[in-house]
Amino acid sequence: MNQDERYMRTAIEMAQATEGQTSPNPAVGAVVVKDGEVLGMGAHLKAGHAHAEVHALNMAGSHAEGATIYVTLEPCSHHGKTPPCADRIVEAGIKRAVIATLDPNPQVAGRGVEKLKQAGIEVVTNVLKEQADDLNEVFYHYISTKIPYVTLKNAMSLDGKIATVTGESQWITGEKARADVHQDRHKHDAILVGVNTVIKDQPRLTTRLPDGGKNPVRIVLDTHLRTPVETPLIQNPDAPTWLVAGNNVSEEQREKYKAFPHVDILTVASSHVTVEEALHLLGEKGITSIYVEGGATVNDAFLRSGSVQQVITYIAPKMIGGQDAPTPVGGQGIKALKEALNLHIKEVVHIGNDLKIVSKPNR
Amino acid sequence: MNQDERYMRTAIEMAQATEGQTSPNPAVGAVVVKDGEVLGMGAHLKAGHAHAEVHALNMAGSHAEGATIYVTLEPCSHHGKTPPCADRIVEAGIKRAVIATLDPNPQVAGRGVEKLKQAGIEVVTNVLKEQADDLNEVFYHYISTKIPYVTLKNAMSLDGKIATVTGESQWITGEKARADVHQDRHKHDAILVGVNTVIKDQPRLTTRLPDGGKNPVRIVLDTHLRTPVETPLIQNPDAPTWLVAGNNVSEEQREKYKAFPHVDILTVASSHVTVEEALHLLGEKGITSIYVEGGATVNDAFLRSGSVQQVITYIAPKMIGGQDAPTPVGGQGIKALKEALNLHIKEVVHIGNDLKIVSKPNR
Repeated sequence: MNQDERYMRTAIEMAQATEGQTSPNPAVGAVVVKDGEVLGMGAHLKAGHAHAEVHALNMAGSHAEGATIYVTLEPCSHHGKTPPCADRIVEAGIKRAVIATLDPNPQVAGRGVEKLKQAGIEVVTNVLKEQADDLNEVFYHYISTKIPYVTLKNAMSLDGKIATVTGESQWITGEKARADVHQDRHKHDAILVGVNTVIKDQPRLTTRLPDGGKNPVRIVLDTHLRTPVETPLIQNPDAPTWLVAGNNVSEEQREKYKAFPHVDILTVASSHVTVEEALHLLGEKGITSIYVEGGATVNDAFLRSGSVQQVITYIAPKMIGGQDAPTPVGGQGIKALKEALNLHIKEVVHIGNDLKIVSKPNR
Repeated sequence: MNQDERYMRTAIEMAQATEGQTSPNPAVGAVVVKDGEVLGMGAHLKAGHAHAEVHALNMAGSHAEGATIYVTLEPCSHHGKTPPCADRIVEAGIKRAVIATLDPNPQVAGRGVEKLKQAGIEVVTNVLKEQADDLNEVFYHYISTKIPYVTLKNAMSLDGKIATVTGESQWITGEKARADVHQDRHKHDAILVGVNTVIKDQPRLTTRLPDGGKNPVRIVLDTHLRTPVETPLIQNPDAPTWLVAGNNVSEEQREKYKAFPHVDILTVASSHVTVEEALHLLGEKGITSIYVEGGATVNDAFLRSGSVQQVITYIAPKMIGGQDAPTPVGGQGIKALKEALNLHIKEVVHIGNDLKIVSKPNR
């Protein structure tokens, strides 16, 4: 690890710490260094607030003159909610800029770099690019497709069961794995379930972490508006609840949710809600990432639609057995193995007694 | 890692290399060291042949006088197929003996150490004991119970399926994972399947490795002797095939296998073969370890019988789906989660694109 990578690692670490709180903006970190001394550090904290470079340059003050700035993402060159960072870097008298990865938007990629170069700043790109790209995978996906990034989450036994034959499912995994799920909820804009899961499990779908955490929007795929008014998602206003329904639900059916201001009903253009339509609609509403928490039929629908970017599988080392015990993905499944969705394993982590496997589809 | 552990590590490594070839004896390694110089190294290679200590002392020759011997298992003190190693160590003039773990047979444990001490040799025990115990887990289990050590092996998709809804199962895992299965077959005395697997998959159940390998005994749980004569297990004589049948199979049924000298029929005492009876019988026949390769009903029977010592799960990162697609453990399963067999994960290894998870039941 050379010096450039050393400081970029810190910038990436800072950006990682803000994952989940910057949406719809990317997580970005910046470090200002002169003569081997760190003079400024910053990260973008929240959409509409200062960018990472600005925080780092503010900390460095006049010492930034002649310094190197490390940024995990190409500095912006356009006026958004804040002035262009490229200009701010030039004004600060920065001599050298090290950038992990270019802007994901092909229409502006390279413009920030260009602006810096024109001002006589030495620019180095692609330092720890892979880590920086991983960091903002969700953002890049959303920016380029306008469709939310979809993570499918499952928890199963070592023999592939999500419940016993009688349907008992609480809990397969241990306490630490369940806490990890809450950490992942916090990182997403929305949690999604099918209406059958709402009826059967009556989940709250909130982020419950010891130190708090952001509650994502709670989304129910509910073609016929069958979500019971008595269920926690409706009774508890801790987070917005969006019911995605078909276009032939009656005014009477909608009526019963009117008393709950945190509940919204989104209707798709056809009588039955499809994954594709729901994702399109949610993307338009600014949802950049969705954490799908099942059940088996919803998982099957997402897999069939080809719109899964990540699969997270928790495996609890226990054997449940039973030919009729439910498994993570139901529906009709595929007939031939060659039709299976092939993934690659990105990460395997021990969490308490359980295992967390993060996989991504091969492209 | 101190010096004792350093040399014991080598002795353990040598023993590990012989796993699968020493049954019914344990794998043992030995190293002779004097003044920080290795003078002799040996491992037990095959039942009836010289023990590890003898090989190592032979290599050291007269230099062994005044040296330290490192042995992974307490030297034997009784006359078996070879003379007692403890006597050989004394005769060689060894000054100090470092032993990883005592003899697993409680009736002789400590006797080897005693003999060494009486001859004035300094004895140190429990050096890297855990690794040494892991090495011969199978041997210890068999010595203390006379029942084979049972490993349940499964290969499934990331969504817990062992085949598609149409039954296509070849192949879920990749080539490297399948080669690893052959390596594990080599390490076991026997492979066991149910008769339905024989009929459906027509397996050969031999060890097919690039550099060869030992073919374990092939065992079929076959209450009514339904194994077809045309199947590879009968037609191919590369390894013994034992059909475990109930006690009311007719002479006529037995007759059809008589033309095949590698085929034996073992009958249990009752009309239906149970796992307990089969294991008892196989233990009596000198089988110390069994690699159970399914299917789902046999797995269920083994789990219910409480006689599983290890579960090996290969996970291929692919999604197959299907409510009716088969899973690793069938049968009736358990009703309440508290009845599940709880395990702990010992090891997780990436093999090609797949994952191998080794778990053991909590005791």
